[in-house]
Amino acid sequence: MKPRKLQVCLSPALLPFYDLTNTIAVVVDIFRATSSMCYGLANGANAIIPVAEIAECLAYRGREGYLLAAERNGEVVEGFDFGNSPFSYTADNVKDKTVVLTTTNGTRAIQQCSAANRVAVGSFLNISVLSDWLKRQDCHVLLVCAGWKNHASMEDTLFAGAVVSRLKTVDSVLDDSAHLAEIVYLDAKENLDAYIADSSHAKRMQRLDISADITFCLQEDRVSVIPVMQGDRLVCLPDSAFTSHSVSA
Amino acid sequence: MKPRKLQVCLSPALLPFYDLTNTIAVVVDIFRATSSMCYGLANGANAIIPVAEIAECLAYRGREGYLLAAERNGEVVEGFDFGNSPFSYTADNVKDKTVVLTTTNGTRAIQQCSAANRVAVGSFLNISVLSDWLKRQDCHVLLVCAGWKNHASMEDTLFAGAVVSRLKTVDSVLDDSAHLAEIVYLDAKENLDAYIADSSHAKRMQRLDISADITFCLQEDRVSVIPVMQGDRLVCLPDSAFTSHSVSA
Repeated sequence: MKPRKLQVCLSPALLPFYDLTNTIAVVVDIFRATSSMCYGLANGANAIIPVAEIAECLAYRGREGYLLAAERNGEVVEGFDFGNSPFSYTADNVKDKTVVLTTTNGTRAIQQCSAANRVAVGSFLNISVLSDWLKRQDCHVLLVCAGWKNHASMEDTLFAGAVVSRLKTVDSVLDDSAHLAEIVYLDAKENLDAYIADSSHAKRMQRLDISADITFCLQEDRVSVIPVMQGDRLVCLPDSAFTSHSVSA
Repeated sequence: MKPRKLQVCLSPALLPFYDLTNTIAVVVDIFRATSSMCYGLANGANAIIPVAEIAECLAYRGREGYLLAAERNGEVVEGFDFGNSPFSYTADNVKDKTVVLTTTNGTRAIQQCSAANRVAVGSFLNISVLSDWLKRQDCHVLLVCAGWKNHASMEDTLFAGAVVSRLKTVDSVLDDSAHLAEIVYLDAKENLDAYIADSSHAKRMQRLDISADITFCLQEDRVSVIPVMQGDRLVCLPDSAFTSHSVSA
């Protein structure tokens, strides 16, 4: 796949303008959905089922081995086991369980990528293993920033820029959004915390008193899993596939 | 209006997610619609009527004192007087004329801003007079990047970042897109040409052999007009209004 397109979709509302043919879509919702997905699967969850609506989540109520998680506007929805804080996705909570999760932005973005060859999930927690795997795939790459209610967000754009900067080769064709994200990341990388502190999402989260979540989600390489969609759920890409060059539909 | 919101809409497709109440929308299509609008009005055009569709433009055919201009995909549409190259908007061509213009991105973005208190047009050609005027208005400011077919573009984002950096005060509340645009501008400002050369639009224009247009559109402060929408057309904001604090609906 040369030249390889390396693109960044800054908001899910812009997805209709991207061609997903021969493309791996990597969904990014750093605070906190995709960070928690990576952490939960690394901690032994069987799978995570991302659903767009609370009602879809509730449909799993009472099923053995299922945990229901719902977040809206940064808070756990009343009546649910938990929301999208990574600290809920420990082995104690999720090992051998299937988590059904709906969030304000991230899970919806995943569902909107269904036309891609493969849908994966990224966060700083798995950035190296994800980037190394993407490098070896013979596909275009589209980083899909979940953002906040269809607005671009600093943290997702920074992450997208970090991946662009790791993947870019002389054969890559970047769209302008990928250039923009990379410039911002290269400017910010020595001091991510400060750039994030100034962002609107961090301010929203400050009000919710979850600064520990922010610090957690900005750690690089805490886990070595790559969550990928298989049917209706996210599972770990098998270790053997990390070295494969093929991408199945 | 304190705190004053200072926001950047990176693509017209994101406009529905912005509240335009008490807001001046500044439409930006550096290559080349809004640059040519500024230049044409500075060169004595009576008005510029931005229309979304070629058919709307054709409806003015044969009317005395009207020039019809249409661009699609960077080229003049067959049968039209001219497209959106600034070199078509000289005094020789446009003085005392009304130009009816449709372009791929810019004129559509203008029409989509009609809910704003005031719609103005910006380019590097009028950046100082525009920024100084915006500073004095008691309104939120939304910079609307026309981009390219609903994708974010380097040149429009750079311009938005330049305006953010001029307008920002301790009382400003920036959205993440405004932060992103400002970071990119501050990184690029000593070397705009190089950043633009790498952008997808510049590459498209290279193929069209209009690099002189790019150089022209990146000049700061060539003109001292502020095009604003009045009814269905762009006219020069009267000099007296430059010092006014009021914004009419």
